[in-house]
Amino acid sequence: MNPTRLPFPFPVVTWTGAAVRLLDQTRLPRELGFLDCCTIAELGAAIRALVVRGAPAIGIAAGYGLALSWRLGREAGEDPPRLADRLARDHDALAATRPTAVNLFWALRRVRGAAAAALAAGADPARVGEALLAEARAVHDEDVAMGRAIGQAGQALLPPAGSVLTHCNAGALATGGYGTALGIVYAAWQAGKRIAVFADETRPLLQGARLTAWELQNQGVPVTVLADSAAATLLRQGRVDAVVTGADRITAGGDVANKVGTYPLAVLARRHGVPFYVAAPSSTVDLETARGEDIMIEARDPEEVHGFGGLRTTPQGVAAFNPAFDVTPAELVTAIVTERGVLRPPYGQSLAIP
Amino acid sequence: MNPTRLPFPFPVVTWTGAAVRLLDQTRLPRELGFLDCCTIAELGAAIRALVVRGAPAIGIAAGYGLALSWRLGREAGEDPPRLADRLARDHDALAATRPTAVNLFWALRRVRGAAAAALAAGADPARVGEALLAEARAVHDEDVAMGRAIGQAGQALLPPAGSVLTHCNAGALATGGYGTALGIVYAAWQAGKRIAVFADETRPLLQGARLTAWELQNQGVPVTVLADSAAATLLRQGRVDAVVTGADRITAGGDVANKVGTYPLAVLARRHGVPFYVAAPSSTVDLETARGEDIMIEARDPEEVHGFGGLRTTPQGVAAFNPAFDVTPAELVTAIVTERGVLRPPYGQSLAIP
Repeated sequence: MNPTRLPFPFPVVTWTGAAVRLLDQTRLPRELGFLDCCTIAELGAAIRALVVRGAPAIGIAAGYGLALSWRLGREAGEDPPRLADRLARDHDALAATRPTAVNLFWALRRVRGAAAAALAAGADPARVGEALLAEARAVHDEDVAMGRAIGQAGQALLPPAGSVLTHCNAGALATGGYGTALGIVYAAWQAGKRIAVFADETRPLLQGARLTAWELQNQGVPVTVLADSAAATLLRQGRVDAVVTGADRITAGGDVANKVGTYPLAVLARRHGVPFYVAAPSSTVDLETARGEDIMIEARDPEEVHGFGGLRTTPQGVAAFNPAFDVTPAELVTAIVTERGVLRPPYGQSLAIP
Repeated sequence: MNPTRLPFPFPVVTWTGAAVRLLDQTRLPRELGFLDCCTIAELGAAIRALVVRGAPAIGIAAGYGLALSWRLGREAGEDPPRLADRLARDHDALAATRPTAVNLFWALRRVRGAAAAALAAGADPARVGEALLAEARAVHDEDVAMGRAIGQAGQALLPPAGSVLTHCNAGALATGGYGTALGIVYAAWQAGKRIAVFADETRPLLQGARLTAWELQNQGVPVTVLADSAAATLLRQGRVDAVVTGADRITAGGDVANKVGTYPLAVLARRHGVPFYVAAPSSTVDLETARGEDIMIEARDPEEVHGFGGLRTTPQGVAAFNPAFDVTPAELVTAIVTERGVLRPPYGQSLAIP
């Protein structure tokens, strides 16, 4: 078992006063370690290297990064115009670390906006620094509160004792420390329910085997890992009370884009009469996109399929198909759990209510 | 691309006159190599080490092993009683290499029986050796003929051009050199059809990524590897004309036990209107077992799920669920292709016809 049980919510990202401290996910599940980023270059490199991953967690880390930027400038004795220049430069450097992370841009814009507002109100550099840090903390706190709300709403769907099947890592490690799909499991435990988790290993990148298994084990939640293709056997054997996954994007009609392998789970869950729940903040809902068919499925690097942890498994010269995610049609989704509560079909109506 | 295109059927097992030569599957897909087993100890070790794998291929190798045993005894100048002792000893040693391989016991019994018959008929040691080798060759030839018959019957089900999705390795490498599910693909190519193959990588042991991809590429058949959970996306996108898998066991009613991950493919194929074919010799049909529910699902070593190739992916102390196979109900099977032809539902009738 894991020797060090971490506090909950997990310290995925923390502000030490002089550094952005990251729970180093590249060393999981082998060992628990933290990386203190004392410069923006260090933080940018850490984000690129997936020391921190998951859209909400990256956004939170980048937000604290702007507070760090301002602090470093003040320590260097810079005047307000040079401080503002540095902040703009560091904003752009952090925004360039993961080019498709919408949450990252959103968090950076929001935290930088707090500095702009403070400057416009005539605040001195010390007060601007406080405003930056307060906004970065707010981004973080709101994410944890959202996880808590999703967890509370979702755990009510689970029996007093039973088991949940999940895919990939929609957990504490992907967020500010609480999680979405796994947030429901943690909230159920806090409510006294005895929930065990079956975690799909989630090829090709094995987030389930590496991260979901690690964080649940760390909190003492029973977890069993399986090859993705064995989930159908569990469902058929009646050993799963609910399937719970996260979402990358939810259309106006309730179609759900999530890690590849989610759709077949939903089909199998329906076949075996097991509820299929999706847990995600309401910011994941994209009311501009009507149907799942309208979502472009990103093709990821075939190399991910050609190997396993640096070990080549396929012959040289063979092609690979590696879609990043798949789309589960709304008709297979029993409920969508957001911080606003449990939304039921028809999703065209339940998702539209602000 | 693979530098050496092998003859077809593949030389998975060959008798050199003085050794049992095995295509070394432990070195695939990295390199093509052969291992000459010149003693029964060497052959037994090779079978144990999975240099040769797949029930039919193991049986064929063991059959030639008895011919080798007799030859070694004659070279040592042993008299008929000592030759018979040696044969009995080597029979038992080979039978002990893979304790659950029914094909292995069957092939050993059959080849040894040919020696017993020759001895009973008063044959001299040279003639007994010939009888042993002839029977070992017959076991091998019949397996290839069976693959050819399955291939011929099955390829008629495929369009002139299109694609097939398969799982695990029901290929030439698992048999005497022709294959069952992949035998259909090879026969289709020989009939001038342009069939491309999508190969599930097949966690945990990755037989699809390692072996199916290798043998198809070797024969110039276009092959694309994918994570098992991405197959649903292919089916949904209408990119698969037929799913074709092998079978470990088929019940009297047509339920099919095969590598874990077969059942979810059958469910998804049905949902998307894609035919699901099972290719297997009729010896796979177990008329004693009525329904899939009666088949015990073997739990394999959890270590297979905890990593790959010596690389650990899950945290220490976490549990794993690792069923060896799953059961696809007959209602999802479009046709079962055996050497007797294409069998259609109701399988209770079509399988029962001898």
